[in-house]
Amino acid sequence: MIIDCHGHYTTAPEQLEGFRKAQIAAINDPTKRPAPPKISDDELRESLEKAQLKLQRERGADMTIFSPRASKMEHHVGNEATSIEWSRICNDIIQRICTLYPKNFVGVCQLPQSPGVPPANSMGELERCVKELGFIGCNLNPDPSGGYWTAPPLTDRHWYPIYEKMVELDVPAMVHVTSSCNPCFHATGAHYINADTTAFMQFLTSDLFKDFPTIKFIIPHGGGAVPFHWGRYRGLAQDMKRPLLTELLLKNVFFDTCVYHQPGIDLLFKVIPLDNILFGSEMVGAVRGIDPETGQYYDDTKLYVDKLGLNSAQLKQVYEGNARKVYPRLGKILDQG
Amino acid sequence: MIIDCHGHYTTAPEQLEGFRKAQIAAINDPTKRPAPPKISDDELRESLEKAQLKLQRERGADMTIFSPRASKMEHHVGNEATSIEWSRICNDIIQRICTLYPKNFVGVCQLPQSPGVPPANSMGELERCVKELGFIGCNLNPDPSGGYWTAPPLTDRHWYPIYEKMVELDVPAMVHVTSSCNPCFHATGAHYINADTTAFMQFLTSDLFKDFPTIKFIIPHGGGAVPFHWGRYRGLAQDMKRPLLTELLLKNVFFDTCVYHQPGIDLLFKVIPLDNILFGSEMVGAVRGIDPETGQYYDDTKLYVDKLGLNSAQLKQVYEGNARKVYPRLGKILDQG
Repeated sequence: MIIDCHGHYTTAPEQLEGFRKAQIAAINDPTKRPAPPKISDDELRESLEKAQLKLQRERGADMTIFSPRASKMEHHVGNEATSIEWSRICNDIIQRICTLYPKNFVGVCQLPQSPGVPPANSMGELERCVKELGFIGCNLNPDPSGGYWTAPPLTDRHWYPIYEKMVELDVPAMVHVTSSCNPCFHATGAHYINADTTAFMQFLTSDLFKDFPTIKFIIPHGGGAVPFHWGRYRGLAQDMKRPLLTELLLKNVFFDTCVYHQPGIDLLFKVIPLDNILFGSEMVGAVRGIDPETGQYYDDTKLYVDKLGLNSAQLKQVYEGNARKVYPRLGKILDQG
Repeated sequence: MIIDCHGHYTTAPEQLEGFRKAQIAAINDPTKRPAPPKISDDELRESLEKAQLKLQRERGADMTIFSPRASKMEHHVGNEATSIEWSRICNDIIQRICTLYPKNFVGVCQLPQSPGVPPANSMGELERCVKELGFIGCNLNPDPSGGYWTAPPLTDRHWYPIYEKMVELDVPAMVHVTSSCNPCFHATGAHYINADTTAFMQFLTSDLFKDFPTIKFIIPHGGGAVPFHWGRYRGLAQDMKRPLLTELLLKNVFFDTCVYHQPGIDLLFKVIPLDNILFGSEMVGAVRGIDPETGQYYDDTKLYVDKLGLNSAQLKQVYEGNARKVYPRLGKILDQG
């Protein structure tokens, strides 16, 4: 079985964006507050059949761990009420998709974060998504300001309530920023990758995993810059008299395979233990074209993984076993069939 | 000849730090303004003989392109006057070192940047360092705020005056942030690497090099996350209908080899054209320990480069030729002997 741990609903019908525009326009004028978007099941199906489902089938993946479009979480827009409403709507759509295609999609939620608002306030939506909607994880934004990094590091006690809830519910978080409102940072080309690198270094310098020994985080986009600079990170930890990275954080931190060329995937698997890599493609996402050097889609990461020369047990681990381990609720769903 | 394009004076006698502390303490009380630090030639020699010079000899490098300690530039501390005084003092020390050891060191300057202050105000110090002190380049900080990224992107016209001066003087800039005052970002583990990635993506999305076809930037630390995600960057440029990266920016953007393990260096040379890679070690710098997996210093990057299997012409290019190309004033200094 092949599980893609990183997919976003980037192809929603235009009503969703229409609602969002109206919602933003009404932030300062509640009389203009729009009704929730009306999207039929057929429209949901159509938006997926020509995109994520088509690509799943063509590429040979079975199931995608699916969450709302990351770049549109936009926690920096509006206020907490804006974020709560928008998160509920986006998460409910994911739940409908998972009901329409229970074999193809399983849900991960967007949290109603907002700059300056305690992460504890996101616990209600997380609990609703897991307990009522059957979701198996969440996307946690380490920078709700959208590129100004005004929140404390992920290792600060500021974040502990949401971690306690994650542990209680037995769900992991993918560390995932949204778009950037800071003109310095291109979203998918800089902000996403920087956030991955930043989160890893925050974990490296803290004792978070002493306080939460079972919590699990997925750092997407292959871990940002981390595998490329694995020697630097091993060396920094060593200079700081920290434990080996394997002991310090590799029981809790995992990387996906959203790296869009063979040399990158080769490096990832060379330096990061197989136990810590989950298959992912971020499809349909940041890069949509075909690589003229290979004639294949850049984001068809399964092709790169298949070329690594892993044996069948190793492939099973990357494609399925590690996802079952990191998302404990996934196994129950799969085994129920 | 082996030229290390990336060395900082990280081992200065304690008087320098003493001065800096006193300078900071006097920011709001000019009556306490300290006198410039007194450091003898012997003290300079001693600080280098046991560190950079010892390692140059042991590792077989001939010359280091040398600049003030990057993490202590601290453009976010104090005001413009603070930064001007501190930059002059640090640059003057680099010039003394280059005079003491003209075969071992050639200077690159720190600029007196300060948040909210036009980069044009740094032109005077750049001109002084190049024309009077014999320097061959500068370190340009894309984020004088120290981790809050409040300046415009490097591709904004805000920066053009300093680029015009660079072109006039025929000197390149290494894009190099200083320490971070934002608790989200560890300096050498996150902020440095993020800045590299960010700058590259800024260049990718702009037409800066149409306006400055001959300007040259070195992105240190192996280009941050860029080589690891080279497929992502090729794909993003393609989706945005930008030219191929080779045409768009590789006549102007270069990477050093400050990547502290063999798999990272292997990847760097696999995806980045040889024309665009300059040997560098960042020694003595971010990582000072010995890698237990190899028994060698993490930052002894020459070992990794030597293991690539390059032929002698290729090695000469990475160790010397590319540095001569990117730093045009270097050739004149070397050829004068």
